[in-house]
This record gives sequence, structure tokens and C-alpha cells, in this order.
Amino acid sequence: MRIGIIGTGVMGAFHAQCLHTEVSGAVVTALADVDMERARAAAAAIPGALAFDNAQDLIDCPEVDAVLIASPDFLHAEQTLACIAAGKPTLCEKPLSYSVADAERVVEAHRAAVGEGIPLVHQGFMRRFDPGYVEQKRVVTSGEHGRPVMVHSIGRGVASGPGATDETVIFNSAIHDLDLVPWLLDSPVTEVSWHAPETPSSTGGGLRDPFLILLRTADGALSTVEVFLNARYGYDMRCEVVCESGAVSITEPHRVAVSTQLATSTGIPEDFRPRFAEAYRLELQEWVTALDEGRAPALATVEDGAVATRVAAAAVASMRNGGAFVRIEDVA
Amino acid sequence: MRIGIIGTGVMGAFHAQCLHTEVSGAVVTALADVDMERARAAAAAIPGALAFDNAQDLIDCPEVDAVLIASPDFLHAEQTLACIAAGKPTLCEKPLSYSVADAERVVEAHRAAVGEGIPLVHQGFMRRFDPGYVEQKRVVTSGEHGRPVMVHSIGRGVASGPGATDETVIFNSAIHDLDLVPWLLDSPVTEVSWHAPETPSSTGGGLRDPFLILLRTADGALSTVEVFLNARYGYDMRCEVVCESGAVSITEPHRVAVSTQLATSTGIPEDFRPRFAEAYRLELQEWVTALDEGRAPALATVEDGAVATRVAAAAVASMRNGGAFVRIEDVA
Amino acid sequence: MRIGIIGTGVMGAFHAQCLHTEVSGAVVTALADVDMERARAAAAAIPGALAFDNAQDLIDCPEVDAVLIASPDFLHAEQTLACIAAGKPTLCEKPLSYSVADAERVVEAHRAAVGEGIPLVHQGFMRRFDPGYVEQKRVVTSGEHGRPVMVHSIGRGVASGPGATDETVIFNSAIHDLDLVPWLLDSPVTEVSWHAPETPSSTGGGLRDPFLILLRTADGALSTVEVFLNARYGYDMRCEVVCESGAVSITEPHRVAVSTQLATSTGIPEDFRPRFAEAYRLELQEWVTALDEGRAPALATVEDGAVATRVAAAAVASMRNGGAFVRIEDVA
Amino acid sequence: MRIGIIGTGVMGAFHAQCLHTEVSGAVVTALADVDMERARAAAAAIPGALAFDNAQDLIDCPEVDAVLIASPDFLHAEQTLACIAAGKPTLCEKPLSYSVADAERVVEAHRAAVGEGIPLVHQGFMRRFDPGYVEQKRVVTSGEHGRPVMVHSIGRGVASGPGATDETVIFNSAIHDLDLVPWLLDSPVTEVSWHAPETPSSTGGGLRDPFLILLRTADGALSTVEVFLNARYGYDMRCEVVCESGAVSITEPHRVAVSTQLATSTGIPEDFRPRFAEAYRLELQEWVTALDEGRAPALATVEDGAVATRVAAAAVASMRNGGAFVRIEDVA
Repeated sequence: MRIGIIGTGVMGAFHAQCLHTEVSGAVVTALADVDMERARAAAAAIPGALAFDNAQDLIDCPEVDAVLIASPDFLHAEQTLACIAAGKPTLCEKPLSYSVADAERVVEAHRAAVGEGIPLVHQGFMRRFDPGYVEQKRVVTSGEHGRPVMVHSIGRGVASGPGATDETVIFNSAIHDLDLVPWLLDSPVTEVSWHAPETPSSTGGGLRDPFLILLRTADGALSTVEVFLNARYGYDMRCEVVCESGAVSITEPHRVAVSTQLATSTGIPEDFRPRFAEAYRLELQEWVTALDEGRAPALATVEDGAVATRVAAAAVASMRNGGAFVRIEDVA
Repeated sequence: MRIGIIGTGVMGAFHAQCLHTEVSGAVVTALADVDMERARAAAAAIPGALAFDNAQDLIDCPEVDAVLIASPDFLHAEQTLACIAAGKPTLCEKPLSYSVADAERVVEAHRAAVGEGIPLVHQGFMRRFDPGYVEQKRVVTSGEHGRPVMVHSIGRGVASGPGATDETVIFNSAIHDLDLVPWLLDSPVTEVSWHAPETPSSTGGGLRDPFLILLRTADGALSTVEVFLNARYGYDMRCEVVCESGAVSITEPHRVAVSTQLATSTGIPEDFRPRFAEAYRLELQEWVTALDEGRAPALATVEDGAVATRVAAAAVASMRNGGAFVRIEDVA
Repeated sequence: MRIGIIGTGVMGAFHAQCLHTEVSGAVVTALADVDMERARAAAAAIPGALAFDNAQDLIDCPEVDAVLIASPDFLHAEQTLACIAAGKPTLCEKPLSYSVADAERVVEAHRAAVGEGIPLVHQGFMRRFDPGYVEQKRVVTSGEHGRPVMVHSIGRGVASGPGATDETVIFNSAIHDLDLVPWLLDSPVTEVSWHAPETPSSTGGGLRDPFLILLRTADGALSTVEVFLNARYGYDMRCEVVCESGAVSITEPHRVAVSTQLATSTGIPEDFRPRFAEAYRLELQEWVTALDEGRAPALATVEDGAVATRVAAAAVASMRNGGAFVRIEDVA
Repeated sequence: MRIGIIGTGVMGAFHAQCLHTEVSGAVVTALADVDMERARAAAAAIPGALAFDNAQDLIDCPEVDAVLIASPDFLHAEQTLACIAAGKPTLCEKPLSYSVADAERVVEAHRAAVGEGIPLVHQGFMRRFDPGYVEQKRVVTSGEHGRPVMVHSIGRGVASGPGATDETVIFNSAIHDLDLVPWLLDSPVTEVSWHAPETPSSTGGGLRDPFLILLRTADGALSTVEVFLNARYGYDMRCEVVCESGAVSITEPHRVAVSTQLATSTGIPEDFRPRFAEAYRLELQEWVTALDEGRAPALATVEDGAVATRVAAAAVASMRNGGAFVRIEDVA
């Protein structure tokens, strides 16, 4: 499978390296970036890879069988539409869009293009391939501990990226949890409510951080999502599913424990790369293998991507109306 | 210090045993219960202890220097008032009352009785003596990790008691967390909001369980309290304080880990007794030692008890109004 | 029970404080030390306590019902004999002696004094009261995981005391493990073998540290004991009992976990005091309660103390003969 | 890289699947087994793969660029010699041989064939690629915690394979630890000593299990290796390196923790496959990538394999002489 990657920033470079060195059956043949120098530098690291300075040329390139979109968020919908038009299998990084209307336009275009056939487009919700969340979902779904009643999902990072706003962090970061919780529960989100502390550090820098989202799902469960992008201490993902007679948590993915200076310590990753390297690898391997075998990849669908955008939009609406619950179906 | 104990149910018997066998400087001299047979049975286990069939006789007994109230909740306020009237040091189990008005009546009577002197009455919030929460508060208060922004407190049990209602579980169980969070943060609760899942198991038995309370404190922090009385799997207390640059959690108080049948396991207590035995012992020891030394015991005060009742009443009000935040100062 | 304490160094002061503030039914009435200033300082902290500058006066003092020996090791046997002569219940800190002959002399004098009656003398092996080891023994003894086949006991500390030698650290420190392993297994040690690394840091300072002792017990189990007095990182006790179908380990007794600076950490105690405070308290409480009730305390006996001395002497013999196994029965 | 695999039992099938589905740049083109039906079944799972009923035909096959030997242990040396003769890059599963003489014959033939060039043959000590051991070695080697003085390595499994003997379990199972410890310490083993319990269950079935090996390395460290093949409770690998001022342990590789029925549990793998899947994948990926890039793979060398055989032979000699230390250089 010959893959072309749009965007050669942190995410695109990470995917390119993984596809090139660790995914069976994949060859990276093209990389595109509006910054042609960056595209060329990325291509130089992969024998035979071409560099492009625009997405459309890469999409149209006959050396490209499938496209991975890792460009800035605001380009995702448009580039996905171009891939659909070109009829090429596409893996689009989250989110599909910050706009519910745009996300649904992509879904419609996709439906028109593939009908009941194998989907062309998938969404990069890699947590669905993390061995921890996968095992957690397996145990919960087994029913051994009764039905789930609450999920507590926490996502913390060292620092928010440049230009983050109260709105973009929901569409860009919290969206992982907004996809994760209904996936774990196998039940769609019905309404959400947004809250945040009022401490000096969480309101002073122009960003409300941390914040808390309450999620209700169709199965009746009530879940909490805490997002804290500037937690400073590390990239720390936690998740517990509380069932009727048992609770299931993912555990920290450390490798060693060190006892020194009156403490025993285990490491916390600095960012998403060490934490989710395995999830990304498994996601990409499944995508490539499925395409190669002519079956539908077990990745999040474009519909999942559009639903997550809708849930995120509902959280933004709640944020703007003082924290009241907003129903997903009421989001335009 | 000669102690009289009112109530010889589970809690009273537990306190009697602890005072008798593990607290230095304490002698249990009297036990009262409306069920005289039960009072006599309890007294028989302690050499020289007297049995009474009513609280007032115990309070008046000259062999009693100090009173521990472990009777049913609805009697706490009235019996505390009787102890104040008798001028005897008193440790009243939580809650002080289910009624804000009654709680404040006790506070006023107490103030009238002791003025600026050493308080007579203290409230049994034993978590304040649990070595885990104590160490957690010490680390948070040190400021080493910046200011706290969120607390996540979870309290789960095997099964709710007979007759529990949506209201009583707030006054009787959640009240521990409603006292704990502001104590950890050293900042009073300003408003609360109540939410619960809508799953069959959490609505079918006449009890909304689990439920979630959001707490705002004067310092701006936003905290979550999950209470799940029928979690079945065990008596499990968790608490994390998230600060600006670090997070501090209590750890599980297990003693051994057993590896067998493809799993490594650590035990979870069945109820509050093994979990908080050390906290109760330390609380009682501090109470007795302080009384003996003529200084104010470092226990929760009667004012703390009244405040917790007020916060609980606000949570009940939120439960009744659909989950909107209720300000503590607005509770009558 | 009025207790007199011989020795007011670290250990004696620790016991005095515990008995005075945390043990029900105990009063510390006398303290003795060859350094009379130190004895007076210790006595000043306890209302009504007398100070003596020699052990015999304390033993003879009519205000002393029972004696706790916390003097330097080389005085233990002699002072225990004096207590037996005086007919006073005695708790002697470990070890009973560094000399097998002296230890057996104490055992014989004790046997002559008490016959089949309630023992007068007990030995301070407090690990037998540590809730972790107690629970470990309970699980192992239950037989649920089959019979034990190996124990791995590790004892590490921050730094060895002044004047420690290869021999004294066996009698003074390793002796805890030499008592613990057969107690856990309920089977006496039959032979031991001593080994040590040859690294610069473990041979350069005049002390072979760490070292390893292999222990065979009558039940056929083979156990390892690692002692590392200068491990620097903390006071760390570990123990695993490997059974036929399961393994049982004590867990670290931390209270909180802190996530900061890319690591999650739990504390390690600096010395034995925080680690074994609970064990010492429970040991002393059992001693006092049993004496008060006129029954034999469930502490290690003087015979246990003599056996431990014999096992330690065998380890020393192995150290001197190049690590070959030495049978306990061959130690003179 | 077109790979041929000799042996299609558990190990060969596991490698075939990994190479086929998860290793970038590898194609499995041939499989050989003395049981031709089994070879055909294995080949059927991989599009285009050929089946052979003997190793030599596979080695000679022009569709095979490199050979992976996963046949029964006693064939390893002979088949490796055949690969050297054919000049094909080879990854031989451990052990190289049970015979020191045979192992050295392979080393000599290899040296004669490649001289100072890129090695043809590597040995399958996959623990060197396990992220836990790799991180442990990195931390130890950093010197941050001083020099290592002891290693405690434990390897337990559910049940020993059919036909296991006291000797074969050293060459086949313990050999992992006998390679691991000197690799972690970067210092060769100098002498070893073998010991075992004498419990009914550990002597009754014709197999001494568990057993303990003491290892001395040239750096002066003293290490313990516990092997317990019939531990029943799970496949459990543990390893701690004790340094002068800190201790470094690998942690258990679980993904989730489940709280139910009064216990919190984490899973233990049933066998080596889930435990070391990642290590095998990384080992194979490094092998294939290095061969492709024309550089020496960072796997254990054939010399490492021969040394491990020698250490194992010394352990067998110690077992036969009652546990005395046997020097590696004295093993013929």
C-alpha cells in the first residue's frame, strides 16, 4: 500500500516514521506541506518519497494509493472531500471539523460516493487501538461486572499548544474523550454540560483550563471528562468505567520503577508520542492490512468523526450558556 | 478520662471496643441504649461499665466525664444540646443534624455555653485523622505543587443501609466528602450541584445511586464527589487533589498482594471498620489526650458539623431542582 | 501496668513515647540509663516517671511491675537474667545475645524460674505484629495457595550504624529476617549459607554490605535473605512467600502518590520508626493487655530469641568458611 | 527481506505470524518442518509461502534470503552450521546448544566465515528487546544510582513442558536469565551456584522446581536467579537491579485493573506470548531492518549464545556437585 501524507508537522512526521519503519505492507511514497522545505526534509528521510507543496497534487499523484491527512485541523474537512472526490482511501486525523455543518457535508459526500460499499474515509481516534482502552472495553462489554453506570475519563498534558482557546481545546483535545466514552459504553452521547474552576491559574491566561464535561449517554450512564492541558506534571491519561458490581480502570503504562531518595517512582510520558505509540502503530497497521485485504478497516468511521464534532459543539454551547446541559440533537 | 457512650449499635460498639482496648487514658464507664438488653450486653464486655436505657441518665451520671454520641442520626442534635446543658465534653458522630435550623441551634447553644473557651463539642469527621488524607492535605498545603484546582473524591460501599433515601444518603454518607473537600482545600464550599445516572439499576430500587456532586469552594476550585453506596465490589475510598503542577492521591491501604490464577490482587475492605480503624483510633486518642491535657482537641468543631449540614442541604436542594447549582448561603 | 524501661537511646525513647501516649493500660514509671542526664531528660517528658542510672535499681523499684529492655545489645542477656531473678515480666529487645551459650543460659534460668507457668520473658521481634507480615502469614498458613517453597526477604536501610561489623550486622539487623522466615513458614531453620558481592562499594569500608543469606527450613523450603544496610535510598522491607500455586507479598506502606515532574512517586520511610510504628504499638499493647489479663503474651518467646541467636551464629560461621552451608545444630 | 522459518511448532508459528503481519520489510516465503503436514498448514496461512519437510531444502531455497531457526533445541547448532555454510543471515532461537563444545564449534565456523565482517548469525534472546528490561538497563547504565551490586531475576511459568529435566530446564529456560543478568550489568558471569528447595512438590515429580542460581559477574556483583516453571499462578517475570544508591525494577505489564469482589486485580499472562510479543516484534523488526540496511543487527551474537551455554553448563555442574560455586572458565 503506497501512502501519501498531507502535513509534515509533528503529527505527520510521527505517522511517516511509523508507517515507514514499523507497519507491514506500507510504503510512504509522498509527503505534502504548504512549507515545501519541510515537505522536502520529511521526504528526504524516506527513500524514494516525493515531496509536494499542496495537498491536491499529492491526492492526485498516481504513486499514492491511500492518503493520511495530518494537516492543521481547519483543512481536514476540505481535504477529506478532495480525497473522496479522488476515490482514494483516507485516514483523517481528528477532528473532522470544528463545524457541525461541514462535518455533515463530508459525511454526505462520503455516503454518496461509497453507498453501502467499503468506506473510503476513517477518522484517527487512536485511543480505540490503545491496548489499555481496548482491554477495558473488552472487560466492560463482557458484562461480567454488570452494566456500566459511570465513566471517569481524565486527560492531562504538560502544556497547551500555541493559540489554544476555550473552544479549540474542546474540538482538538477533549474530542478524544468525547469519542472514547460512547465507544467504551457502546452508546451515543445524548447531552453534555461544561464546567471549570475559577482559580487564578485557570482563568488568567485566556484559557479556561482545566475544565470538566459531564456526559449523558443513551444507556443512562453519567460520565465525567476532565481535561487539563497545562497540568505541567506530565501527559497522563486515566479512565475508569464503574459498573454495577465492579470498576475497570486502565493502568499507567510504565516499564520500570525506581527507588531512590526516599521515594519509589514510575515515569509519566512527556507527550502523546510515547503514550500512544503502540495505539498509532496498531491503528495504522489495521488500516493498511484491511485496505490490502479489501475489507473495511476497524477504525472510527467518518460518521463517528461527525458525531464527535457534534458532541464537541454541544460542549461549546454549554460553556457559553453557563454550564447547563445541552442536548446533542439540538446542536445545529 | 471516663467516657459514656450513647448508642450501642455498630458504631457505638466499635467506639467502645476501641476506647477500651486501644486508647491510652480512656476508660469506658457507661453505655446507653433505648434497647436496654443491648446496652447491658455491651456493658458486660467492659469491666465495671454501667448500662442505661436512656441518654439523659448517662449524661447525668457522675461516673461519666465525657460523652460520645453514636445514636441514630435524628437524635444527635438533641443529645448534643443535653450534653452542652450538662457541661460535659462531647464527641458527636456525624451528622450534627439533617436540619440546618437544628444544627445552628446547637451551634448557638454551644457558643452561649463556652464563649471563647475550650469547645465542649466536637464532630466525628474521622477522615481528618486518616493517615492518607492527613498526608494528602500536608502535601497539598505545602504548596510544593502549586495551588489546588480540583478535587476528585470517591466513596463507594458494598450496600446501602435499610431505609436509605436519596436525601438521607446525602446527610449520612456524602457528608463525609462534603466536609473532606473544604478541609483539604482549607476553603469553604460556596455552591453545589447534584447529578445522577439514569440507568435501570440506579433508579429502580427507590434510591438514586450512584450520584455525583459538583462542589465549588471559595478558592475557585471545582471538585467532584462520587458516592456509590451499592457498588457491591467493596468499600473503596479514593481522593485526588489536582494542583497547578502536580496531583496528589491517597493510595489503597492494602497490606499484601497475592498472585494466583493469572492475577495479582490486593484486598478491598468490606466496610468502614477495617478501612478507618486507624483514623477512629487516632481521633479518639486525640480527643482523650487533649481533654486530659486541658486543651482544645484537634477534631472537627460543632461549627464544622453545622456547615456540613448546610452543604448537604444545598445538595438536596439541587437534587430537587434538576441539578442546578445551589449556593450554600441561600439554604435556609 | 507500671513499666520501667532500661536504656533511653533511640529505641528506649521510642518505646517510652509509645507506651505513654498510645498504649491502653500502661504507665511508664521509671527509666534507666548509664547516662543519668539522658535518663533524667527522658523521665522529664513523662509525668511522674523516675530516673535511674543503673538497670538493677530500676528492676528492683517497687513502682515497676514490668521491664522493657532497650539497652545496648551486649547487656540484654545479663539484664534479662536480673529480671528473671526479680520475677518481673520482661520484654527484651532483640537480640537476646550474640553468644549462643549466653542465650541458652537465659533460657535455662527462665525455665527454672517459670516451669510450665506463664512465661516471664519475651523477645522484641516486632515484625510479628506488623499488619503486613501478619496478613502474609495468615494467607500462607491458610493453605489456599499450597505449601510454601521459598521466601524472599529483603531488608534495606539508609546507612549502617557506627561501629557495625560483618558479624554485628547479622546479630543486630539480619536477625529480624532470621526470626521472620521460620515464623512465616512455621518451620525451624536447619542450615544457612552466607554470600556477598565483591564490588568496591561493598568491600571497601570495612563492612561487607549488602549480603545474602540462604536459609533452609525443616519443611524443605529454601529462602533468601538480602540485607543492605547502606542502600541509601530508604528503609525498605520486602517479603514474598512463594507457594505451590501462588505468591504472597507484603506491599509498600505508603499513604499517598504524587504525580509531578514526569513521575508518580510514593514515599519510602527514612528509618524503622515510621515503618514499624504500628507493629511496635501493637506488640506493646498485646504485652500490656496480656499481662493485665494474666495470660501469656503472644510475643516471641525467650526460646525464639535463643534460636534466632543460634541461626545468626550459623550465618557468621558460614561467612567465615567461605559460604558453605552450616547446620544450626552444629553451632556451639 | 524474504524469510524462511525452520520449525513450525508454537515458536515457529508465533514468529511466522509476527513477521507476516507486523514486521515492516519482511516477507515469509518458506516454512520447513519434519512434519510436512504441519509445514503445509503453516504455509497455507501465508500467501505464497512454500513448505518444506527438511531444513536443508529451505536453507538452499533461492526464495529465502534469511533463515529463522525455531526447531527443537538439539537441532539448533547443526542447522546454524548449515546456514553459515550457505552464507545466509540467520536468527537462531535460544539456546545455541546444550553442549559447550558444539556451541564453540558454531562460533568457530562463524568466525571463519565472516571474519571481521557483519555477523551472519544472531541468537534469539528477546528479553534484550523487551521495553521493560531495555529501560531498566538504560537507567542502570546511566550511573545515576551508582554501580549495580545485585540483580534479582525471577522467571515463573504455569507448567513445565513435557520431558523437562533438571538439566534441560537450565539450558532451555534459565538460560534467559543467564544471558540477561550479564547483559544488564555489562559484565560477564564468572561463577555460578545452584540450589533448590527440598519440599515434596519440588522433588516428587522428577523435576527439581523451583531452583535458585547464584551468579557472580566480573564486576563483583552477586545476583540471584529464581526459576519456577510450575508456579501455576501465571507467567511472571520480575527483575530488580540493586545499585549503590537506588534500585531499579521492571514493572508488571498489565493494561487494566479490575475492582470486584473485595479485591483489585491486574492480570498475569498465561505464557510468554502476550508477555513478550512486543519484545519479539522489536527483535524481528531490528533484524530485518538491519539486514535491509546492510548493518549488523543489534541482537545477541552467536558468541553471546555460546557464552550462555557455558554458563548454563556451569549451573548444571554445580547442581551435580551439591551447590558449590563452579567457575565458568572451568567448564569444558
